[in-house]
Amino acid sequence: MIFLNKNHMGRIKRQFIQDAVENAYEKMRENNYNMPDRMHVGDNDNTLLLMPCFSGDFFSTKLVSIFPDALKYNEPAINGVLVLNDNATGKPLAVMDGAALTAERTGAVGGLGVKYLTSDDIETAGIFGAGVQGLSQAKYLLLNRTIKRLYLNSKSCASAQKLAADLEKEFAQTQFIVLDNPEKLVKESQVVIGATTSSIPVFKADDIDLSNKTFIAIGSFKPDMQEFPNEVIVRADEVYVDTLHAAKESGDIAIPLKNNLIEQDKIVPFSNLTRKIDFFNNNTYLFKSVGMALFDLTVATAVFRMAQKENIGQKLDF
Amino acid sequence: MIFLNKNHMGRIKRQFIQDAVENAYEKMRENNYNMPDRMHVGDNDNTLLLMPCFSGDFFSTKLVSIFPDALKYNEPAINGVLVLNDNATGKPLAVMDGAALTAERTGAVGGLGVKYLTSDDIETAGIFGAGVQGLSQAKYLLLNRTIKRLYLNSKSCASAQKLAADLEKEFAQTQFIVLDNPEKLVKESQVVIGATTSSIPVFKADDIDLSNKTFIAIGSFKPDMQEFPNEVIVRADEVYVDTLHAAKESGDIAIPLKNNLIEQDKIVPFSNLTRKIDFFNNNTYLFKSVGMALFDLTVATAVFRMAQKENIGQKLDF
Repeated sequence: MIFLNKNHMGRIKRQFIQDAVENAYEKMRENNYNMPDRMHVGDNDNTLLLMPCFSGDFFSTKLVSIFPDALKYNEPAINGVLVLNDNATGKPLAVMDGAALTAERTGAVGGLGVKYLTSDDIETAGIFGAGVQGLSQAKYLLLNRTIKRLYLNSKSCASAQKLAADLEKEFAQTQFIVLDNPEKLVKESQVVIGATTSSIPVFKADDIDLSNKTFIAIGSFKPDMQEFPNEVIVRADEVYVDTLHAAKESGDIAIPLKNNLIEQDKIVPFSNLTRKIDFFNNNTYLFKSVGMALFDLTVATAVFRMAQKENIGQKLDF
Repeated sequence: MIFLNKNHMGRIKRQFIQDAVENAYEKMRENNYNMPDRMHVGDNDNTLLLMPCFSGDFFSTKLVSIFPDALKYNEPAINGVLVLNDNATGKPLAVMDGAALTAERTGAVGGLGVKYLTSDDIETAGIFGAGVQGLSQAKYLLLNRTIKRLYLNSKSCASAQKLAADLEKEFAQTQFIVLDNPEKLVKESQVVIGATTSSIPVFKADDIDLSNKTFIAIGSFKPDMQEFPNEVIVRADEVYVDTLHAAKESGDIAIPLKNNLIEQDKIVPFSNLTRKIDFFNNNTYLFKSVGMALFDLTVATAVFRMAQKENIGQKLDF
């Protein structure tokens, strides 16, 4: 058995991780997986999510804990451990830092949204949120597109500035611009990525032409959390979700549905896309991700295989 | 974070582990724990059990896989991983070999049955089953009582002989006797422990006086698996279970209940016992265990604390 932490995972190429997420969509098309509904355990204000998934030669279980009060102890609110097992014998093969794995795979899910739902020649982008996912979304955006100007917005200006400084080290060809004005960020960006835990939309759409833009919503994971205003999904010519559960799990879909602003059949699984969409002038596209255990499984599998090949990780004498 | 394998756990004193199981019963009496029903995931012939439990300063999740075909690959059918977390922050603290932990805690559960439900001066005992649990039950039996003659029976005579040889190395004062005849084992033993995966009772009671005997049933974990014949539970003056779930989960309780051979209220939680029972001549006692996540949690907690104190285990750079 091997143990893989954040640093070990950082040594795996992003393209390889994104390909693993693409493999998850293939498995969805082939209906070649077994992913029961995740188990929610509540304990006072804390939550434990247990996310198992079986497919092919492996199965995995991700344990995610959400402890809001951890911040008081200067610890992260979200922690995770993923266990990867052999699907022929059940034998445990690897234990991974689940938070690091989630950060990478969620970045890659957004990256695939960019790959399939934006034009090759886009030059501007904006990201809301400067946390772990702001960073990860930026990295996978820049894996897929050569962005000249990347606008960053966060409730905390200092966080956005730190994110810009971190990204500048790796991506010299991109100009990172911290913007206080959310509406300006949307106006200036051909692709807009939401990576916040905001409960209310992070910008007002009243005065913005949403045409020729792709929106990627990553942050909202509860029915009462909404990152983008209703105008985006109403205006969108095409709306994709990583899983149809998003319609219940995320306010970005659930709220406009509940208010009858859109029809249910406007929501299309991202796995239906087998190639980059044909872009039409003035169109607006929306992709909403809530994540799922199948992504964890295919990414953990890929990471495990590469770790074995490249001798990455800490060996455990199981 | 630390990793603890079977060898690491073998260095923790058995008395310490048994005390941790006793602590689980205290928590049950105080209703001081949160243990949701475990999640069963079926995948073809394979099963994954997810067993979370919260109490006090820690929570744990045990992942147990049951892959019957693993034997074809010369791998064990049952594997497990336990993750122990800090209950203030959610932070993962330890990963343990779940099968090794289960072997120890289940031995200790049986050991407590012996401690509370047998007389101090018993000299004879019999164990059915020579697998991991046969070994573990013997070790914890001998932690609690000085047995002169310990009878061993297994479908495979060679396994019973190997078990006897293994036990002789540690317990020089006990005579280990392999017996082919199950009825003779019961007749000769003051305490009889079932540690098999048998679906049908391992002995016939017709011709046996069951008085002055304590029966400890560990093996059956499905409603159609029964280790001891109905006569035992019918004859028993007192019947204890580690959890009332046993009445549904194990055929040793479910079958006689279904056939109206006993009343539901004959089944008493072991946690009701706060001290050794008063023995009466000619009485028969039965204890049935099916296990639960709370045992895993209190034992994992104790093991973790001792491992930290004694510097046992492999450090993981989480």
